[in-house]
Amino acid sequence: MASSSQNSGLVINLLQGDKRALAKAISLVENDEDSSSDLLNEIYLKLGRGYRIGITGPPGAGKSTLVDQLTKEFRKQRKGVGIVAVDPTSPFTGGALLGDRVRMSEIAMDEGVYIRSMATRGSVGGLSKKADDVADILDAFGNDYIILETVGVGQSELDIAESADTTVVVLVPESGDSVQAMKAGLMEIADLFVLNKADRAGADQAFTEIQSMLELSNKKDWRPPILKSVANQGEGIAEIIETIAEHRDFQSQQNLLEKKRKQRLFKKIKSIVRFRFEQAFWDETAYKTIDETLESYRNLKMSPYKIADELIENFKRKLERKE
Amino acid sequence: MASSSQNSGLVINLLQGDKRALAKAISLVENDEDSSSDLLNEIYLKLGRGYRIGITGPPGAGKSTLVDQLTKEFRKQRKGVGIVAVDPTSPFTGGALLGDRVRMSEIAMDEGVYIRSMATRGSVGGLSKKADDVADILDAFGNDYIILETVGVGQSELDIAESADTTVVVLVPESGDSVQAMKAGLMEIADLFVLNKADRAGADQAFTEIQSMLELSNKKDWRPPILKSVANQGEGIAEIIETIAEHRDFQSQQNLLEKKRKQRLFKKIKSIVRFRFEQAFWDETAYKTIDETLESYRNLKMSPYKIADELIENFKRKLERKE
Repeated sequence: MASSSQNSGLVINLLQGDKRALAKAISLVENDEDSSSDLLNEIYLKLGRGYRIGITGPPGAGKSTLVDQLTKEFRKQRKGVGIVAVDPTSPFTGGALLGDRVRMSEIAMDEGVYIRSMATRGSVGGLSKKADDVADILDAFGNDYIILETVGVGQSELDIAESADTTVVVLVPESGDSVQAMKAGLMEIADLFVLNKADRAGADQAFTEIQSMLELSNKKDWRPPILKSVANQGEGIAEIIETIAEHRDFQSQQNLLEKKRKQRLFKKIKSIVRFRFEQAFWDETAYKTIDETLESYRNLKMSPYKIADELIENFKRKLERKE
Repeated sequence: MASSSQNSGLVINLLQGDKRALAKAISLVENDEDSSSDLLNEIYLKLGRGYRIGITGPPGAGKSTLVDQLTKEFRKQRKGVGIVAVDPTSPFTGGALLGDRVRMSEIAMDEGVYIRSMATRGSVGGLSKKADDVADILDAFGNDYIILETVGVGQSELDIAESADTTVVVLVPESGDSVQAMKAGLMEIADLFVLNKADRAGADQAFTEIQSMLELSNKKDWRPPILKSVANQGEGIAEIIETIAEHRDFQSQQNLLEKKRKQRLFKKIKSIVRFRFEQAFWDETAYKTIDETLESYRNLKMSPYKIADELIENFKRKLERKE
């Protein structure tokens, strides 16, 4: 494999903790260059040292500030931290936001921290695969902690939570209506709840509400604790880090971490297969076929199901010719 | 096609507005039965009468109440309304929520309204396809309006917005930090903003914030208006309906509606292709191969990339044998 040997210098440098190699490897992944699968393939068997923490919750819950504080705390312990911040794209900002920029300038000065913001750009499922790939690279680089931060409560958040070893769901007193938070599926993915901005009115009530929802939970192994924090004042951060460590220990003892990582591997295989299929399928000819059909949309005689059938037949013929 | 003739009675009844046929057709789609693509294929060329309204926004914004009020208003005009409410799954409720149930019992008594709640169940991309399919069926049934209601601000919401002719983004004074709402990509998809619970403190400030973000917008054709409402008191509903009608007229005049529906068709073809591929690919043998590899995960010598390659080779061989 030509591309494999092209990457080998990059792989060696990355595994040795070279920051330039890290930036280059992440760019490769983000730009979907062909050689990125080779790179990811080569580093894969070196992974598993970094611990992955997912931080999710509704907009405005203070996730960025919390990630900031956790990072500072980890840095005090001389741990390396990689951060993947996932943002749905805004047409105004291209996915990078003023708030993030401010934050980044603060902790990005630290040599032991690497931050990468990623935007969705509207691709279904594609983002969670990429975020996971970037996490792999941050792991290979030798980071002790990889933090996956996502905004919102949609499908991509659930996907990214699946990529984490411990998932922290951040809520605020105003975001409950905790019932609404439950509705958003956050209960399902939380290993730990953080009620942030806990100095605000309604914090006790929100705490009680989350607690009573949790009592209905059928989670057997690990009952997610609820912690309070005031992230912008650094309150509650040490307790969060302690609880993450407890959850990590618990999972190691129960062999759950390995199970979780197996599931992650399975999911990864599925997404690689999907990605490769789509790359092979959606060539120029397929797009042309579809364009021609869409051109005559007004007089459309074919449903999308028939058009799909035709494209699939074309694809099979293409595969045969290649054999 | 055997299944096609099996469905023809169902198709006829559905197109004639039979409520039982509607329920049955939706069940077919939701349960992924093979005959559902045949059904969808048969009805496809009969579509386009119903107008699709997407309602999205952060949890707690009052979307359900708003949908309720819009529906009641449409019903006063003797219009048929179909509602697809998309919910991320909660392990406690299976995706259906107390609030929804209360609501449903209120407007579900109306013969001219059909409501279907759908849960994500963790499938990537699958839900938006299904919601779109259900919308097709509600359209074929003869509904004048199809309302797609989604909670949250993630990828699935963006997908579902793409399925709508007019997308209404619902915000509340407390949900801004409007900057956070922008971050969530809601600006990109909004044809119309509704600031709900506008009788609460901070409404004017939130209104101004949304307004100034919109001034930065590069949307050329249609500048999304911002309306205020107090949905649970029925305030502002008439204006919302009027603005939706204006947006509809605008799009018709500018030929934008056809363009939007073309894009929807294109997206649909892509998702059908993906769905069919995954159905063909992930057979028992593929799962077995993957299980065996995962069993030996501890001593894993293969990266997921190599495993994916192997599965793809197996799949190609399977296709060849079938030819």
